[in-house]
Amino acid sequence: MNEAQPRGILYVVGIGPGAHEHATAAALAAIADAELVVGYATYIKLVRPLLEGKQVIKTGMTEEIGRARAAVDAARAGGKVALISSGDAGIYGMAGLVFEVLREMGWKRGESPELRIVPGMTALSSCGSLVGAPLVHDFCAISLSDLLTPWTVIERRLEAAAAGDFVVGLYNPASGRRTRQIVEAQAIMRRHRSGQTPVALVKSAYRKLQKAVLSDLDHFLEYEIGMLTTVLIGSSQSYVYEGYMVTPRGYRNKYELDGDILPGQRAGFSLVAQTAVPPSPSDRAAPSLVAAPSHVGAGLNPPSSQPSQLTEGEAE
Amino acid sequence: MNEAQPRGILYVVGIGPGAHEHATAAALAAIADAELVVGYATYIKLVRPLLEGKQVIKTGMTEEIGRARAAVDAARAGGKVALISSGDAGIYGMAGLVFEVLREMGWKRGESPELRIVPGMTALSSCGSLVGAPLVHDFCAISLSDLLTPWTVIERRLEAAAAGDFVVGLYNPASGRRTRQIVEAQAIMRRHRSGQTPVALVKSAYRKLQKAVLSDLDHFLEYEIGMLTTVLIGSSQSYVYEGYMVTPRGYRNKYELDGDILPGQRAGFSLVAQTAVPPSPSDRAAPSLVAAPSHVGAGLNPPSSQPSQLTEGEAE
Repeated sequence: MNEAQPRGILYVVGIGPGAHEHATAAALAAIADAELVVGYATYIKLVRPLLEGKQVIKTGMTEEIGRARAAVDAARAGGKVALISSGDAGIYGMAGLVFEVLREMGWKRGESPELRIVPGMTALSSCGSLVGAPLVHDFCAISLSDLLTPWTVIERRLEAAAAGDFVVGLYNPASGRRTRQIVEAQAIMRRHRSGQTPVALVKSAYRKLQKAVLSDLDHFLEYEIGMLTTVLIGSSQSYVYEGYMVTPRGYRNKYELDGDILPGQRAGFSLVAQTAVPPSPSDRAAPSLVAAPSHVGAGLNPPSSQPSQLTEGEAE
Repeated sequence: MNEAQPRGILYVVGIGPGAHEHATAAALAAIADAELVVGYATYIKLVRPLLEGKQVIKTGMTEEIGRARAAVDAARAGGKVALISSGDAGIYGMAGLVFEVLREMGWKRGESPELRIVPGMTALSSCGSLVGAPLVHDFCAISLSDLLTPWTVIERRLEAAAAGDFVVGLYNPASGRRTRQIVEAQAIMRRHRSGQTPVALVKSAYRKLQKAVLSDLDHFLEYEIGMLTTVLIGSSQSYVYEGYMVTPRGYRNKYELDGDILPGQRAGFSLVAQTAVPPSPSDRAAPSLVAAPSHVGAGLNPPSSQPSQLTEGEAE
């Protein structure tokens, strides 16, 4: 590159589901700081009030590579540019393509542009919040679009996710032309899970045309599923309660809901399977087993007889 | 419940990684609106500037159930309560436990409290943004904590995620007492993936003690991994470039980076595996195959000869 060029900034920004109240301040600040904002026309529309006095490049659905190149080129030449994705630019978004383009042009760290990746809330979170608490335990995200990924790879991932009893979030489940994939996904999941497994369909979360439907694995294909739909398929543990879809974290495996511990379990120690005998003395003497007092709280519960580290349940 | 009770509000709020600039306005507004804020002491500290004039219940690591009950009880009695988790309350957070507690007390939709689940940015997104673009293709989240989940279940999920070639995000990878699980996870992944597979370790993303390390599957256990670390393990497609970890979305399977399409591929149609013959006429005549013009953009690229729907690549 030309050493005389000023060092531009390329913000790669996830704007969240759409409503500004679910964008982060950092994402809005990045757009405010940019001289040029680049994005898919629909997303540009979502941030229109922020664009006054700025250059804007909005392109259509076929133009990801063009958008990434335009943003990189302008920032490389010294501009302050925000390339926006909905959700999180790092989850099925534009961040990956930015690196592909930079690599192709031989960009090195320290050269122009400086990269600032601004994370946003992905559809799993925004859609999950509209139907309850479907993602409180282990989950997978799989895109059903086979435009860039061979269907055999997607199929293998569906099989693995089904076999692993993950909650499964499907991105890009269908489009006008692509309707067979979601049918095959349903069939794969159904071979591993009950037809009563809860399934949520959320369209346009936190946008004007928002729609959320709760169904089950045997019936969800009866509803409209399109490009703006995220499909959340429960694990064997997911249940529906008062119209909410919930995947429990597992507290009931170990505790009463008054905080008392169940017989045979020890707070802060590995869960003992309910059909198993208590841990043997050799298990208790395992090297990682260091007792660490951890009661620092206001004591809403009666103190238990064991120190514990349940904080890990929310250590995100 | 007592019909005479006023209808309280229970906000279940994900505050994101910690820094307020990565919280959403909706999350901050929920805390502002609450009379009582309930949370783990560490998270209460993260929002302290917002708490003036409010009641606060902060409890320690052992007290999730007590926190959930205190928040539900106060809101059920008519209060405006915010129960906070870091990240997204719906991803390994408090949202699940709220439903467990409500169900135990026989709560029905329409009764007090009204539930408002306010999504936040989960650790996958915040941590991913600090190391590049590791999550641009299919991924799994797995918690290695076996305090509430039998290790056999976790092990099965690790096997499935490894076999499915997912990028894997490990929450709660280790704690002072729990150190064996991450070693077993490494061994499982290693049986399916190269030792050079990129692995990122991110601790306390967007907090004071933030630390990000890039390593690989053979060597990442040489670094400190604790309760505040998120581990991101690449798929077979992930690579390291200029100190960034990237998982490509697959554009290079189909396109040159100047936007030209590769021989044998068609924009807007299923990827043709490179060793395969072009699709047969019967494939082309599949019922879902409706040509839909989709060029709406400013035309940074020369128009391709086929309409296409690549927007799906970022339809989150």
